[in-house]
Amino acid sequence: MTPTIDLNSDLGESYGAWTMGEDETLLGLVSSANVACGFHAGDPAGILRTLKAAAARGVAVGAHVSYPDRVGFGRRDMDVASEELVADVIYQIGALQRLAAVAGTRVAYVKPHGALYNRIAADPRQGRDVVEAMVLADPTLILMGLAGAPVLRLAEDAGLRTVSEAFADRAYTPAGALLSRREAGAVIHDPDRVAARMARLAASGEIEAVDGSIIRLRAESICIHGDSPGAVAIAKAVRARLEAEGVAIRSFAPA
Amino acid sequence: MTPTIDLNSDLGESYGAWTMGEDETLLGLVSSANVACGFHAGDPAGILRTLKAAAARGVAVGAHVSYPDRVGFGRRDMDVASEELVADVIYQIGALQRLAAVAGTRVAYVKPHGALYNRIAADPRQGRDVVEAMVLADPTLILMGLAGAPVLRLAEDAGLRTVSEAFADRAYTPAGALLSRREAGAVIHDPDRVAARMARLAASGEIEAVDGSIIRLRAESICIHGDSPGAVAIAKAVRARLEAEGVAIRSFAPA
Amino acid sequence: MTPTIDLNSDLGESYGAWTMGEDETLLGLVSSANVACGFHAGDPAGILRTLKAAAARGVAVGAHVSYPDRVGFGRRDMDVASEELVADVIYQIGALQRLAAVAGTRVAYVKPHGALYNRIAADPRQGRDVVEAMVLADPTLILMGLAGAPVLRLAEDAGLRTVSEAFADRAYTPAGALLSRREAGAVIHDPDRVAARMARLAASGEIEAVDGSIIRLRAESICIHGDSPGAVAIAKAVRARLEAEGVAIRSFAPA
Amino acid sequence: MTPTIDLNSDLGESYGAWTMGEDETLLGLVSSANVACGFHAGDPAGILRTLKAAAARGVAVGAHVSYPDRVGFGRRDMDVASEELVADVIYQIGALQRLAAVAGTRVAYVKPHGALYNRIAADPRQGRDVVEAMVLADPTLILMGLAGAPVLRLAEDAGLRTVSEAFADRAYTPAGALLSRREAGAVIHDPDRVAARMARLAASGEIEAVDGSIIRLRAESICIHGDSPGAVAIAKAVRARLEAEGVAIRSFAPA
Repeated sequence: MTPTIDLNSDLGESYGAWTMGEDETLLGLVSSANVACGFHAGDPAGILRTLKAAAARGVAVGAHVSYPDRVGFGRRDMDVASEELVADVIYQIGALQRLAAVAGTRVAYVKPHGALYNRIAADPRQGRDVVEAMVLADPTLILMGLAGAPVLRLAEDAGLRTVSEAFADRAYTPAGALLSRREAGAVIHDPDRVAARMARLAASGEIEAVDGSIIRLRAESICIHGDSPGAVAIAKAVRARLEAEGVAIRSFAPA
Repeated sequence: MTPTIDLNSDLGESYGAWTMGEDETLLGLVSSANVACGFHAGDPAGILRTLKAAAARGVAVGAHVSYPDRVGFGRRDMDVASEELVADVIYQIGALQRLAAVAGTRVAYVKPHGALYNRIAADPRQGRDVVEAMVLADPTLILMGLAGAPVLRLAEDAGLRTVSEAFADRAYTPAGALLSRREAGAVIHDPDRVAARMARLAASGEIEAVDGSIIRLRAESICIHGDSPGAVAIAKAVRARLEAEGVAIRSFAPA
Repeated sequence: MTPTIDLNSDLGESYGAWTMGEDETLLGLVSSANVACGFHAGDPAGILRTLKAAAARGVAVGAHVSYPDRVGFGRRDMDVASEELVADVIYQIGALQRLAAVAGTRVAYVKPHGALYNRIAADPRQGRDVVEAMVLADPTLILMGLAGAPVLRLAEDAGLRTVSEAFADRAYTPAGALLSRREAGAVIHDPDRVAARMARLAASGEIEAVDGSIIRLRAESICIHGDSPGAVAIAKAVRARLEAEGVAIRSFAPA
Repeated sequence: MTPTIDLNSDLGESYGAWTMGEDETLLGLVSSANVACGFHAGDPAGILRTLKAAAARGVAVGAHVSYPDRVGFGRRDMDVASEELVADVIYQIGALQRLAAVAGTRVAYVKPHGALYNRIAADPRQGRDVVEAMVLADPTLILMGLAGAPVLRLAEDAGLRTVSEAFADRAYTPAGALLSRREAGAVIHDPDRVAARMARLAASGEIEAVDGSIIRLRAESICIHGDSPGAVAIAKAVRARLEAEGVAIRSFAPA
């Protein structure tokens, strides 16, 4: 049986007159697009353009929901109350779902963005809020989260399907966590090295940690950061290597 | 056969810590709630509360879509390009639809708010944009508009159902248009007088214009302004008078 | 020598079509107005109206600077980077200073709002950022902070004058801290009791803690919460009692 | 006597994580920077960085005030009431002035942005609002406007100094107006042709209109659009040509 893996990237993160990322190019390389929903990035017209492009390419769509913090690009931790967070996530999912339907596609999964992504990996209260919002909005939605994050268990306990992801260009600790960006070597810039790591991960579930030890990571998707300068080069290298090694790149979402 | 008419009011127009309108009281008096969608007013948590209250009361829900202008409360005319306006309206409809479903109700109609309402009554380009957004988002949505406004025809030509409304507390010109707010007597403040005018309108389709002449107005709904100080008194007076005269107050939307 | 104390309240917290607080009434009762700067509340036209009213009453003006979080009313803790926080505070001070000059008054002090107020009371990094912004913007600005908060020392070390405040309607722990709002009895609602406590504090520097013990608190200003329902009643009671006991109510700011 | 002219460009138009324009390069080529004030673009930290760079280069600073429309980049006409517009402009001037002082420079002039620029060129009500805001905020501020626009006369009548500008890459009608962007040939893309036109204008006050006729234009400044793709190439060509022909490039603002 052909091994398969998903490649995902953050897209639709332009805003009004400001552009960000190389959406068109990345849509030709990834199998899943985490599309901004207007709270950290994305205006409706730009989101719709991105969704149409994703639909044309057959790329699966996820709701890249965020804290309401445009000037901070959703990267700043916020103490949002449960009532607010639940409703904010439903609002974003709903807006994206309708735009996606107009674009001829649908929202298959939810991947929280930036500070919210990091917060729910560790904060069960906000994690439960996101899970509750998804269950209320559409229980067929899949939660994408960091491999090993407790929030995935919360989601599964609530009946949601989950998908775990690895980060293509990040170093891992021997415990299987992401090495903090504050540490030297946290980000791997060489596309070939990134590609080799991801090919090994896809084939065997193994990845070399920062201390040289080999750890096992269950990852059904690989995240290519859309906003890093070398995103396109890394996406190309990872895709080429995976294909060369017989790994099929395919979304986890049912068609 | 019992004559029936709909009463509608703008609701859900609080924002974060700021409250506006007497939603709870008005929900007990009207049959349709124009619910803010976040562009001129309404934050997701507050919108969800309003939708739950509307669902509990059996009040029909409309999407009160607006230009993106919170500080101006959507009351300032804006030259929004078609691509922007179409996507803005779809986004707002989608967000409200999902929140409505979570609240146990659904969005039955669209009533543009403030400056957008006035603009599309006369500007066919923006009118067509709103109609196109509705057709794309959900062609079963009903457009609520000013009785006599050309945009209603545009909507019908596109296959949408429409509902025309009269304004309870506004004076009319002999031609059947609203008397401009800049004119003396444009707003009628006496609840009893308003109620008498609306009872006559509901029973006979007639209303007295500002010059004393009697005009005919086709109105399936009566708008009670939710943000005017006397809104509750007017709503109570209109409702009581209509009921006393045997007019059933009922939403135009199918259950 | 007549004992004197300052009364301060949060004002100018309306936003566009939304009103908040009883600015006009409170301006007749307090000696210092913490005026919103647009980040958590306040639009420029409304801010200018508040500043003109403060100028007409001879009430001193402070910049009520905040995190950029309008929908959360600045009440949600945010991890804002130093470069952002310093510039955000300078921006708000500058905008308010120019509007104040147009209104015929000037900004005498800075009182951080909501979550920022609480955060800098304990977080020296953000505290230093606010202090740095004030030193850069205008080193004659006075920092108003919670009596006993370490940030006051940071400000003094940087050469700023500081003013410490007590909260009229809040209970205190035996250690002189505010009793958390989550505890029973944290907020005192009876205007007479509040007034008696503040009169004692102004006369002797003493206040009864929640356990009945008497603690000493150095407070040059008393905060009357402008957005609590009983704000006006409390302000009237405190003012009347202070005046009855011969305490002069006067701003700490030089004329 | 050496002929002199000013070159101005829109700068500081990044926003949070989004970058726009080549500020660093353009600051080495122009003599005046129209710096965004946060209403259409610019966050405080980014504005401060731009102001520090302008100060380091000795480039004069103007307040690029705008309608409050970030998602529309200030390019959409808005019906803003006078009370709002006056206060909005004062707020933006004040914020920029304080940041400029911190950066070691000062705001010398005001150039309205985008839709506001176009609106006040023709709408005396909004034009008077901008002029009133400048007079109230700081009557030494200079208004930069379109050569020939009536708003310049309004400003002069109110006691303000004005500066008129030509657009480097735009075609002119025989009447001396800008050819509408909707017309073919409205934008001139060839840097050498643009440079030749501007050199002639600086030397003689003459420019060739779209019909081949020669018209006279009084321009003390030349605008290089910072957000057009070829902005840097045009700025370099214009600057080189002017210097080659002995025209000094110098701000109109007193040092």
